[in-house]
Amino acid sequence: MNKHNAKPGRRGREARRAARREVSTEFIPYIKRQVPVLELAKAEVIEMIEANADTVLQEIGIEFRGDDEILKLWKDAGADLDGTRVRFPKGLVRSLIQTAPTEFIQFARNPERNVKIGGNATVFAPVYGPPFVRDLERGRRYGTIEDFRNFVKLAYLAPSIHHSGGTLCEPVDLPVNKRHYDMVYAHIRFSDKPFMGSVTHPSRAHDTIDMCQILFGKDFVDQNTVCTSLINVNSPLVFDETMLGALKAYAKANQAVIVSPFIMSGATGPVSPVGTLTQALAEAMAGIALTQLLRPGAPVIMGLFAASLSMKSGAPTFGTPEPSLITSAAAQLARRLRVPFRSGGNLCGSKLADAQSAYESANSMVSSFLSGVNFVLHSAGWLEGGLVSGYEKFIMDVDQLAMLQILSQGYEITLNGQAMDAIREVGPDSHYLGCSHTQANFETAFHQSPILDYNSFEQWESDGRKDLVDRANKEWKKQLENYEAPEIDYDIDGRLNEYIIKKKESFPDSNV
Amino acid sequence: MNKHNAKPGRRGREARRAARREVSTEFIPYIKRQVPVLELAKAEVIEMIEANADTVLQEIGIEFRGDDEILKLWKDAGADLDGTRVRFPKGLVRSLIQTAPTEFIQFARNPERNVKIGGNATVFAPVYGPPFVRDLERGRRYGTIEDFRNFVKLAYLAPSIHHSGGTLCEPVDLPVNKRHYDMVYAHIRFSDKPFMGSVTHPSRAHDTIDMCQILFGKDFVDQNTVCTSLINVNSPLVFDETMLGALKAYAKANQAVIVSPFIMSGATGPVSPVGTLTQALAEAMAGIALTQLLRPGAPVIMGLFAASLSMKSGAPTFGTPEPSLITSAAAQLARRLRVPFRSGGNLCGSKLADAQSAYESANSMVSSFLSGVNFVLHSAGWLEGGLVSGYEKFIMDVDQLAMLQILSQGYEITLNGQAMDAIREVGPDSHYLGCSHTQANFETAFHQSPILDYNSFEQWESDGRKDLVDRANKEWKKQLENYEAPEIDYDIDGRLNEYIIKKKESFPDSNV
Repeated sequence: MNKHNAKPGRRGREARRAARREVSTEFIPYIKRQVPVLELAKAEVIEMIEANADTVLQEIGIEFRGDDEILKLWKDAGADLDGTRVRFPKGLVRSLIQTAPTEFIQFARNPERNVKIGGNATVFAPVYGPPFVRDLERGRRYGTIEDFRNFVKLAYLAPSIHHSGGTLCEPVDLPVNKRHYDMVYAHIRFSDKPFMGSVTHPSRAHDTIDMCQILFGKDFVDQNTVCTSLINVNSPLVFDETMLGALKAYAKANQAVIVSPFIMSGATGPVSPVGTLTQALAEAMAGIALTQLLRPGAPVIMGLFAASLSMKSGAPTFGTPEPSLITSAAAQLARRLRVPFRSGGNLCGSKLADAQSAYESANSMVSSFLSGVNFVLHSAGWLEGGLVSGYEKFIMDVDQLAMLQILSQGYEITLNGQAMDAIREVGPDSHYLGCSHTQANFETAFHQSPILDYNSFEQWESDGRKDLVDRANKEWKKQLENYEAPEIDYDIDGRLNEYIIKKKESFPDSNV
Repeated sequence: MNKHNAKPGRRGREARRAARREVSTEFIPYIKRQVPVLELAKAEVIEMIEANADTVLQEIGIEFRGDDEILKLWKDAGADLDGTRVRFPKGLVRSLIQTAPTEFIQFARNPERNVKIGGNATVFAPVYGPPFVRDLERGRRYGTIEDFRNFVKLAYLAPSIHHSGGTLCEPVDLPVNKRHYDMVYAHIRFSDKPFMGSVTHPSRAHDTIDMCQILFGKDFVDQNTVCTSLINVNSPLVFDETMLGALKAYAKANQAVIVSPFIMSGATGPVSPVGTLTQALAEAMAGIALTQLLRPGAPVIMGLFAASLSMKSGAPTFGTPEPSLITSAAAQLARRLRVPFRSGGNLCGSKLADAQSAYESANSMVSSFLSGVNFVLHSAGWLEGGLVSGYEKFIMDVDQLAMLQILSQGYEITLNGQAMDAIREVGPDSHYLGCSHTQANFETAFHQSPILDYNSFEQWESDGRKDLVDRANKEWKKQLENYEAPEIDYDIDGRLNEYIIKKKESFPDSNV
């Protein structure tokens, strides 16, 4: 596959190096966790959820709508069909899941950016799905393809973001039935990190695969994962025609899908964490098993998007205790199923990138990260319950991700890490500021944030008493100004553009 | 002891109930953790730190300055003295620590507020020590006794704060050598939660104990813990005369001290987490052992205040990965020593209650809370690296604590928690908004924050696009306006005031 990737030129390399220096974190392609995972649920809780989810699959079943091929697959596998309701004899779903890989590599066009998904790996991907964007000057407005490209570029420049993501915002200025061409192309052209595919129509999933084949080669795509896509379950207990079509396209093509129950406790799932986990596990297991029916060994991720609900407004709420409990237990359940797990993110309900958004985001992110989530969608840029992609929020979140990366590496226990010589050298009643151990380690000892203020009060005052949003605003503009696209093979780029033009001309614009 | 406590009158009870309703969290006297603890350090890391700390105690030793009685105690116990440097034969310190209690009760004047410190209990106490205060209108200014009283009142009203704390801010308008009378009195009079004593001079520790004896009775105080006080180590490896004097006063009086190394990695300790933990463990063990030499069985808490350092400004930084790693491992070390552990808090470096302060606070708080810290000082109100007590920040943090309280309770696995009837009732393709399980549980299902905004975008806009600080500003003012002091026994209050007047008259004001 590498023959298709032009080597990055000197100018590109230098630009990237400069960008890295600015945010002061070495780029690593993904996190290899070195610390034990947080497991908030005791064994009795986990076992109860598993038993109850099996009961849901057996007795209530799952709706698979609008796809006779899939219904036939289930029938042939031994499930009980009642119209579109599928019930599963004890053990069927679990036995099908056995062929799903425990971990897999998603390839990027730059092989240095390949990510491992599963096991002790964690991959950070940006916000997904908002129709709106927000920045400090222009406030909240509909997203455009320019915004979309901007977020691809910011994600490309962020060393702590491992994955380019998918719908960074909806480019509302483009027709619904054609915008996926420009979105997938933006991921390919303006970044060299791995990305996600379109799921809004089965044909758009096929188009994504076509474009991947142009980029990576047809045989390579058939044998390797180059695309990970998000399949939301229509909780409770329904897979609809659109999502089934996209899931089918990707699974058959050996491309990864995230089977993600979308549960707001009290609305699309029971109001209790154990009830929510039960429903979500049943839904996810059914979807994962389906990918294995379609193509045994196809890469698949168990997902769970969990929110609580405001009792006043009915809005989803984030950074609250229940989603943390749900996410931690769901990660445990996924490890027991031996499949990678997606959840978490810097999620918040706040309209602004204010203290509310930060408390909510950190609560949500820290607990899910510590719980060992493998694929963290919505890692950066999420605002207002997912209605808005925020420019400043993106920069703020990315900075936090860099710190989590360090946290995940745990304790250095080399002689240097033990620092016994330093403790002897300094002794009582002195300080470590000038000692040789500090001198040797200081530069790399701590993350250098480009936006957090650590100046003296007087310095901060004379700098104009800025808050974090002000500094983040400056930072994203500076980054976009200095952005340089990674080089791409001229021939491949030409073929991609040809493909897009031809496809766009082949049917009329539509906003459905 | 209860005979001294006037029963709270009807009016007081009603006010408290109203206050509780406003923040929508039931008051519980302290948290009894139901979820497993996060342990970021593997056994090999912990064992290496323990072995290295033992080496520090044997070979480098600790300075105990300005207290011949303590030096003599160490000598008699078998330590090697070289002037004020004390070195400890292998095993001495650990064997002395054996008599320290694994957990203890700190009594409050209202027995409903008694707290357990240690084991599976977590106690939240507010910010400690800032010379400045900040609010939205008046900005940053020196703290006064009025501010101090305000924070006592806000802590009293917060159901998620279990402990009244100590130096909520420095009342800079009062003379240094007499302000402790007004501070301790404020805790006693304006709250009925447990509190901390003065440590800035041994005589002030004795004054605190005198006041506790008036409040609780002399015999009660001798046999029970009614006061927990903070003894900072002068890291690296020094206990100074002031702190030793205060430690001695409290330990002899059977009152709890927190032996707290104060380590900024790279300044008062090595720049690496393992090195910091080694030094801190040696310091804490020596101080804890000393309390047991002074009075075997005296209640004592192992503390650790850990910060990283800005490489640009040299300022301490918070919410960064290294302090989280340090705190989690230190909690493990304390559990192995079988003593309660103090650390963590809603710590931040930010000047403002902005998103920086919230990210930093949540990072710091969530990881240390999950690590099983027993006594969390600085749980609410901390700003600017501890230089400032913030009114809005206090309200914001308190709201977050209420959610951690819920997180700590884990998963409800009753039939109601399992919600299988609800999953059956709703089935596929419907929703849970009106189902009987939701109806039965909705009111108590989620924490109702008084300050987080969950309204629709349109509602939020028409409310004036407020951020969290604006809402917190309104909230603390409303709380102070509606505050009513808990009742106190008339006779005790009179004796406390007499004592304070007499003491204040007995020596001249001084600012040392």
